[in-house]
Amino acid sequence: MMNYPLTLTNLLKRGTTLFPQKEIVSRELDGTIVRLNYGEFYRRTAQLANALRELGITKNKRVGTLAWNTHRHLELYFAVPCMGATYHTVNIRLSPKDIIFIINHAEDEILFIDGDLLPLLEAIKNQIQVKTFVVMGNQKKYNTTLSLINYEDLIAKQPENYDWPELDEWDIAGMAYTSGTTGEPKGVQYTHRALVLHSIVAGLPDIMNISESTVMLHIVPMFHANAWSIPFATVMTGSKQVFTGPRATPEDMIGLIEREKVTFTAAVPVIFRMLYEYLKANPGKDISTWKNSVCGGSAPPPSLVKAFKEDFDMEIYHAYGLTETTPLITWNVPKSYMKLDDQAFYDLKTKQGLLVPLLEMRIEKSDGSEAKWNGEEMGELLVKGPWIAKEYYKDPDETFRKMTKGWFRTGDIVTIDKEGYIKIVDRIKDVIKTGGEWISSVDLENEIMAHPAVLEATVIGLPHPKWDERPLACVVLRPGMKGKVSEKDIVDFITPKFAKWWLPDKVIFIDEIPKTSVGKFDKKVLRAQFENLYQKDQE
Amino acid sequence: MMNYPLTLTNLLKRGTTLFPQKEIVSRELDGTIVRLNYGEFYRRTAQLANALRELGITKNKRVGTLAWNTHRHLELYFAVPCMGATYHTVNIRLSPKDIIFIINHAEDEILFIDGDLLPLLEAIKNQIQVKTFVVMGNQKKYNTTLSLINYEDLIAKQPENYDWPELDEWDIAGMAYTSGTTGEPKGVQYTHRALVLHSIVAGLPDIMNISESTVMLHIVPMFHANAWSIPFATVMTGSKQVFTGPRATPEDMIGLIEREKVTFTAAVPVIFRMLYEYLKANPGKDISTWKNSVCGGSAPPPSLVKAFKEDFDMEIYHAYGLTETTPLITWNVPKSYMKLDDQAFYDLKTKQGLLVPLLEMRIEKSDGSEAKWNGEEMGELLVKGPWIAKEYYKDPDETFRKMTKGWFRTGDIVTIDKEGYIKIVDRIKDVIKTGGEWISSVDLENEIMAHPAVLEATVIGLPHPKWDERPLACVVLRPGMKGKVSEKDIVDFITPKFAKWWLPDKVIFIDEIPKTSVGKFDKKVLRAQFENLYQKDQE
Repeated sequence: MMNYPLTLTNLLKRGTTLFPQKEIVSRELDGTIVRLNYGEFYRRTAQLANALRELGITKNKRVGTLAWNTHRHLELYFAVPCMGATYHTVNIRLSPKDIIFIINHAEDEILFIDGDLLPLLEAIKNQIQVKTFVVMGNQKKYNTTLSLINYEDLIAKQPENYDWPELDEWDIAGMAYTSGTTGEPKGVQYTHRALVLHSIVAGLPDIMNISESTVMLHIVPMFHANAWSIPFATVMTGSKQVFTGPRATPEDMIGLIEREKVTFTAAVPVIFRMLYEYLKANPGKDISTWKNSVCGGSAPPPSLVKAFKEDFDMEIYHAYGLTETTPLITWNVPKSYMKLDDQAFYDLKTKQGLLVPLLEMRIEKSDGSEAKWNGEEMGELLVKGPWIAKEYYKDPDETFRKMTKGWFRTGDIVTIDKEGYIKIVDRIKDVIKTGGEWISSVDLENEIMAHPAVLEATVIGLPHPKWDERPLACVVLRPGMKGKVSEKDIVDFITPKFAKWWLPDKVIFIDEIPKTSVGKFDKKVLRAQFENLYQKDQE
Repeated sequence: MMNYPLTLTNLLKRGTTLFPQKEIVSRELDGTIVRLNYGEFYRRTAQLANALRELGITKNKRVGTLAWNTHRHLELYFAVPCMGATYHTVNIRLSPKDIIFIINHAEDEILFIDGDLLPLLEAIKNQIQVKTFVVMGNQKKYNTTLSLINYEDLIAKQPENYDWPELDEWDIAGMAYTSGTTGEPKGVQYTHRALVLHSIVAGLPDIMNISESTVMLHIVPMFHANAWSIPFATVMTGSKQVFTGPRATPEDMIGLIEREKVTFTAAVPVIFRMLYEYLKANPGKDISTWKNSVCGGSAPPPSLVKAFKEDFDMEIYHAYGLTETTPLITWNVPKSYMKLDDQAFYDLKTKQGLLVPLLEMRIEKSDGSEAKWNGEEMGELLVKGPWIAKEYYKDPDETFRKMTKGWFRTGDIVTIDKEGYIKIVDRIKDVIKTGGEWISSVDLENEIMAHPAVLEATVIGLPHPKWDERPLACVVLRPGMKGKVSEKDIVDFITPKFAKWWLPDKVIFIDEIPKTSVGKFDKKVLRAQFENLYQKDQE
């Protein structure tokens, strides 16, 4: 069989030659709607590639984007890799410090930035090596000291075709950085091969089910793990695409769903929550074409899944993945033979799902053996496959930590049930390692937080001279409950739920749980604070 | 990204570990129904691999099959390539001469044969080098002089797991021979990579739309181009599979559709015709689950597509491909925005369809330039892609003829309309090359056969001193019409339909059109007979 490479150029050519009339709709910051068809999208993409070549972009050079979901970002998603260069989607939500780090670390040559994000760039311009800035949007003038090229001016007079080079499928197409909670962000490079394979598998009927008749609303940011490859998959199939544009509100998104007859979208739980609340507060919107969605980031709350289904006949599926995995690892869909009552159905919905085709997995227990498929044994999820990172960009130490013997360590502690559905129960850094076994801090937290007097609680593992680690529960009581609930009350409350050795050795009442900048429990702080608690006990 | 190979082993493991309860149903020759689940299928496949290893099968050795669609053939489809060897599906419908040639040419080490086909093997046993024969079926004894191993005995005591080797995606998984109308059959080798990519793309929503809930009836023979990769795709997705078994009648097939609640099948036009006639003659069958099918081999007659849709709510899609192309090249599905009346819809159904993802095409006119997308310009279809053959097995001459500059020449003369739908108008060997242009013999034949006095007609190109070739029409009149229709009548009848230079220089009335063994017009014979007709005219 021919050695024909898997490249994004093939997907671009297919979508734009077979479906030139299909529509792309994109919202500008001021609400203006831009409409173009796939034929125009192709010509603009070719113009962009010509302009990039003039600006000195050659094979493997990095083109950074600080951008929302727009048709221009889509043009960058194709023009840059198809000319042999690498798109680098910068997560606009990172701290300025991290943004400076990753732009310099990736050695971006040019930055494409949406107009409303210029203040962000202004603030860091002297700390990054990039000198060429292209501003996107329909605004004519910007109040800035930056020297800017306007995107539309840049591409305007360029030829409407491009002599796309013959690429190797192992050529790098894109890159993104993980927003790791510890240390510097880590860079991941995506090959053409990985993106093409991921796009096809993502489009399968048991996964996103993307067809020519799909109308896709792009909510998941294009600066998050290739927007889950949905822009590539939809171009391949010739689907109508709708881009939410900068700073879209729930009203903007629902408006687009209603007017453009959107059938599918991808987003995180907080967005689904906002959309649901908007719909309840603003009845009468016709969103009847919107039948399915994928929820990533974390599992959608079952109550929200149920509410969308019952109130709006819209089904939310959960998918799980990471920046290092392009991102798809699992997809949660019930099997056709499962007879699930309401409770079982929504329990299933809280799981991450079944491993998608072409990947391989291993669930490694604390002793290195494989976890049984019984929904109870815990292990770290390790994966292999054609869209799994084999290294971090210029970071051999982190590569060594996370990639072992051909496997990528997800850092997620999971169980797997007898039907093969994976459920994340903890992060490897938070799981409590005791006597050669693991205890899920998350499970303990959930049960403690079910106590009516508890406002919030976190459980951490502390060093212990005999057992390696033992759990400590840090509990914040509801206002007025202080002094009315004892350590024993808490332990008694959760005792029926766990094996004896799972129970925390101590429960400490605190005023507040320290949080990270994104609002997650910052267990590092508590672990440092109580580091010697169990050591001292033994002295 | 990891260099993780695309192999059938991955599909086998996914299907059998995630969906061990899903069913495989297979009909024996005597009508007995065998039921096994994916767990059992995996264990039997591992047992088969162990048995093959004992029989001396090692990497790259060829295992031949002379077999119908059964669960055992499915086990061979996986055990052989996943252990690193090559399955060679022998087309049981070929002449004994061709079967001898291909078994020897492929150097098959073992032959797996269904019991009812033993007479075929008896007749050729002294002309093939194979000495090991495994017979399949539930019959205990066979009346034969051959020394046979029974399949069930062969695998019975083998271990139920196998240490599958790590394969390269470029390793050969299978092979098949084209049943070329000229010369010896030509061998095509399929890599793991090609079969995996083909299987995923074939499963996409806009193509076969294969999901876990699909119930697949395998009608297209497993000795035809990997059964269009459907066995691989369905194992990957965990679909229920139903095998028609040896010598299945329409009654057998409809019975399986009814009892097993089949949703999809793949077959050729003659089978669809037989199924339709059976259903009309035997009303009351509940085939309501059967919603979609793919028709290959040639385009299904629009009347049949319409009849199935109107009478049984079952939609037939056409796909086009060749043994050399694994086989999928195009798939015919209307685009969502097309507003087609009945006539336009069924006209579209006669076309081969849109190029499937990951392939690339070129429609090469007689002068080497590319045909315009206007539904009129004709050119030979050339294709490239990850499942297109780059060579014929041990046949450099044929490789040289058919693979040029990285393209595979399909030998099909096509037009392409402005929406990108390909339509085959002739074979390159039959198209009439005149004055640097091409005339479709098929188009002329169809119009001549529309004349009420004409029973059948064929048009051939004859050597011509000035125009290179000119058309000759050979016409068979209906009984009683001889002498009542003139050459001029025929030409006048078709004149309104064609440009003047398309019209045949002569019309000859003959008693019968010579036919090949499979009933096609044998134009070679006529070309030889009339070879000098136009040369002489000029002398």
